[in-house]
Amino acid sequence: MNEKENNTNLQLTHINDQGRAHMVDVINKAPTERRAIARAEIEMSEATLVRIKEGGIKKGDVLAVAQVAGIMAAKKTSDMIPLCHPLPLTGVDLLFSFLDPTTLRIEAEVRTFGSTGVEMEALTAASISALTVYDMCKAIDRAMTIRFIGLMEKSGGQSGLFVRQSEE
Amino acid sequence: MNEKENNTNLQLTHINDQGRAHMVDVINKAPTERRAIARAEIEMSEATLVRIKEGGIKKGDVLAVAQVAGIMAAKKTSDMIPLCHPLPLTGVDLLFSFLDPTTLRIEAEVRTFGSTGVEMEALTAASISALTVYDMCKAIDRAMTIRFIGLMEKSGGQSGLFVRQSEE
Amino acid sequence: MNEKENNTNLQLTHINDQGRAHMVDVINKAPTERRAIARAEIEMSEATLVRIKEGGIKKGDVLAVAQVAGIMAAKKTSDMIPLCHPLPLTGVDLLFSFLDPTTLRIEAEVRTFGSTGVEMEALTAASISALTVYDMCKAIDRAMTIRFIGLMEKSGGQSGLFVRQSEE
Amino acid sequence: MNEKENNTNLQLTHINDQGRAHMVDVINKAPTERRAIARAEIEMSEATLVRIKEGGIKKGDVLAVAQVAGIMAAKKTSDMIPLCHPLPLTGVDLLFSFLDPTTLRIEAEVRTFGSTGVEMEALTAASISALTVYDMCKAIDRAMTIRFIGLMEKSGGQSGLFVRQSEE
Amino acid sequence: MNEKENNTNLQLTHINDQGRAHMVDVINKAPTERRAIARAEIEMSEATLVRIKEGGIKKGDVLAVAQVAGIMAAKKTSDMIPLCHPLPLTGVDLLFSFLDPTTLRIEAEVRTFGSTGVEMEALTAASISALTVYDMCKAIDRAMTIRFIGLMEKSGGQSGLFVRQSEE
Amino acid sequence: MNEKENNTNLQLTHINDQGRAHMVDVINKAPTERRAIARAEIEMSEATLVRIKEGGIKKGDVLAVAQVAGIMAAKKTSDMIPLCHPLPLTGVDLLFSFLDPTTLRIEAEVRTFGSTGVEMEALTAASISALTVYDMCKAIDRAMTIRFIGLMEKSGGQSGLFVRQSEE
Repeated sequence: MNEKENNTNLQLTHINDQGRAHMVDVINKAPTERRAIARAEIEMSEATLVRIKEGGIKKGDVLAVAQVAGIMAAKKTSDMIPLCHPLPLTGVDLLFSFLDPTTLRIEAEVRTFGSTGVEMEALTAASISALTVYDMCKAIDRAMTIRFIGLMEKSGGQSGLFVRQSEE
Repeated sequence: MNEKENNTNLQLTHINDQGRAHMVDVINKAPTERRAIARAEIEMSEATLVRIKEGGIKKGDVLAVAQVAGIMAAKKTSDMIPLCHPLPLTGVDLLFSFLDPTTLRIEAEVRTFGSTGVEMEALTAASISALTVYDMCKAIDRAMTIRFIGLMEKSGGQSGLFVRQSEE
Repeated sequence: MNEKENNTNLQLTHINDQGRAHMVDVINKAPTERRAIARAEIEMSEATLVRIKEGGIKKGDVLAVAQVAGIMAAKKTSDMIPLCHPLPLTGVDLLFSFLDPTTLRIEAEVRTFGSTGVEMEALTAASISALTVYDMCKAIDRAMTIRFIGLMEKSGGQSGLFVRQSEE
Repeated sequence: MNEKENNTNLQLTHINDQGRAHMVDVINKAPTERRAIARAEIEMSEATLVRIKEGGIKKGDVLAVAQVAGIMAAKKTSDMIPLCHPLPLTGVDLLFSFLDPTTLRIEAEVRTFGSTGVEMEALTAASISALTVYDMCKAIDRAMTIRFIGLMEKSGGQSGLFVRQSEE
Repeated sequence: MNEKENNTNLQLTHINDQGRAHMVDVINKAPTERRAIARAEIEMSEATLVRIKEGGIKKGDVLAVAQVAGIMAAKKTSDMIPLCHPLPLTGVDLLFSFLDPTTLRIEAEVRTFGSTGVEMEALTAASISALTVYDMCKAIDRAMTIRFIGLMEKSGGQSGLFVRQSEE
Repeated sequence: MNEKENNTNLQLTHINDQGRAHMVDVINKAPTERRAIARAEIEMSEATLVRIKEGGIKKGDVLAVAQVAGIMAAKKTSDMIPLCHPLPLTGVDLLFSFLDPTTLRIEAEVRTFGSTGVEMEALTAASISALTVYDMCKAIDRAMTIRFIGLMEKSGGQSGLFVRQSEE
């Protein structure tokens, strides 16, 4: 379950005095080392998952393309998410694992040294990587479904460490 | 549950003779009217959902930003998804609904007249719109989670009509 | 002066049934030859204008850069203007003239064969070209001012021919 | 009126030794806090302005879209203006006001900590925001005209504070 | 050797009446099937080439990344080459071969149905793919050199078939 | 000739533990002044080269467009080269020279203050500039050929100074 925070007094920081969206000024936040890990999970038929796994030992590799797509998407995050600050990322990586016979898990890790966090970069990398898997396999399994996209961990900055509570 | 297709004889169409990824040539596919609807669902705390709903009657509107983000993302799909064909989209729309006290549903519909489908455009619009909601609300609810991204319906082209089977 | 139209019954076409922005579907509009001409005028000091003019006979040519910037901007219009349809432009040109000792005029013409007009492409080309002139000359004249950006002429499509009425 | 500067000895800094355009090296300029405010004014029919104002209290909000467009454009400035340095912006905001019954004013403020100013980012944000208003209203008022785009204020860097002299 | 054409009477088509660059209007050219093949050849140390070849049988595949980079670059060609028309490509493929112990050859094929050729798309795909190989191997062989980039074949359109004459 | 390095123990740094591509984390590399110079050479017919040279004294200047294209490409490098870090470039310049009656040489210099080098930016600028020359002249000389693209010099960072050994 989702944690229920008492957020009565918290502000939606992306809203300006006219009540419209703005890109919050972070000029007074000292730059620190930032890291975020996001995860996406895709459910598919067993046959599709087998085909993707085989790709791992042949050259025609669905995951190699999904890897590149995720890395490039991380770099374009501020171009896609309207109020997201542009950041010179220092590192991006994606790892793939097979959770069970019908689930592919993608974990994206992004790092930078900057004044804002890289949650959105990690989430965008994981999401676009998952959509790329869908694109490459949709001819054989159009009902593939993304069942989870979420932030797993984040460190750096004033809000400190965040670690997602276990879902079990 | 996910439908299990018998896909033994089906091809991953995005793989060339060298076993690498390519952008399949669609020059011989006659252009037809294409439509796709994709859906994303975000789970959040009740307090966050209330804040988003309030935005709908004030000016500072999370969903207005998520709407624009989704439309712009649809147009950039072929820039994000490596093997996706560029298509001159004829229409893009997103609709928002509150499924229950902790779930926001985003439905993206994309249309074109072309030689390939617009599933990826609809899925990308819904995904980026959902990530934009996360971005704007993450200061008050970092554990917001995307619980579903999937294709709901698609028409046009050789593969004909696809309608996702009910999950219940 | 600006024409005052009676637009009580006209619709803001970019608004969907939920009252939000969408990209209007144009799939049923037959493609026709489209052309639009937009104009931008920049006021500057006489000395700045002389420097730009000189560039026209030397190699270091402010206008050559502004020309390329305008053409490239026309191609990126649908990436900048949220509800604008992507269109495969068939031609883009910009012409420069010196209206008086302190005014540079830029006229951008854009053509396509498509289902929507190219007004936004012509306006974006003229605007970005003008901003490029500002960028290259701002070190010597920071108060340069764009005094006019407007559509001059448009043809093709259901709304037919538009020609801006003379301002004098 | 435009200020007339004596610029005989000033250089067009964007010109290299071959007389061609280049992106000036700023590696030796110490980074400082930078801020710029730019303004755009759009003249339209009274009926159009009323429709935009109404949007401010309903959900279908022309200005909400123009706001997002301006923010995203600020982030793409160095992609549009050929000789402009890429900068990691720390904040972007746009404010709208109705100057008189036929004039909408857009004011864009951009901030960064860097080696070059953010004039071009503020000007691009204001310009693209104004063009977005045009795009959303052109079906009801094709003769809408941008009557002013200019830098209002800039601080930070060697050239120090610039404040536009009043035009009255 | 390069063929020497008698081009005294031929026009540089990208120059307008003011002697400046423009994007030539192609609205009157009937769309036809277009195909272009371009080639890039990279010279490197034998040890580097062996490392790249090994990648072909392991998962860490330099060529898989270069493949994706080439395909994505083809789609961005009109964004990079100022006077190039935007085209909805129907297919893109890249093939790799090892010409001799120190030379990697990349061949890019691009197809569309349109009013202009796809030479620039094929050349851009081959070039960016080659630069990606350089990027991934530069830590072990900084002196890698691209020794050839050229158009090999092109068909469709008024100028008809072009086949590069053998260099031997 | 290409230098043959003994690279048995060197790592392809862009490969992660799963054997896939990643963007190497550079957060622990101290930022330093970085500079890189890359070169591209294009062989063409004598008549084509004469036409380009003439452009240098008239306004319709092939090289002015190629200059702008190269500068803009440098800024988009991390968008094109998948594993390349985004960097806020401080300076970009291109110089053109005529090596012999059939060869145009383009030299691109890029500078930054950062944690990674700018080799890829300089190589991308030179390559896209060369392709732009091809695009503008292809109507009169389709067999124009890029005979060389390589890094000439690089300074800054741990690997220190690199100067390409003379080829004669």
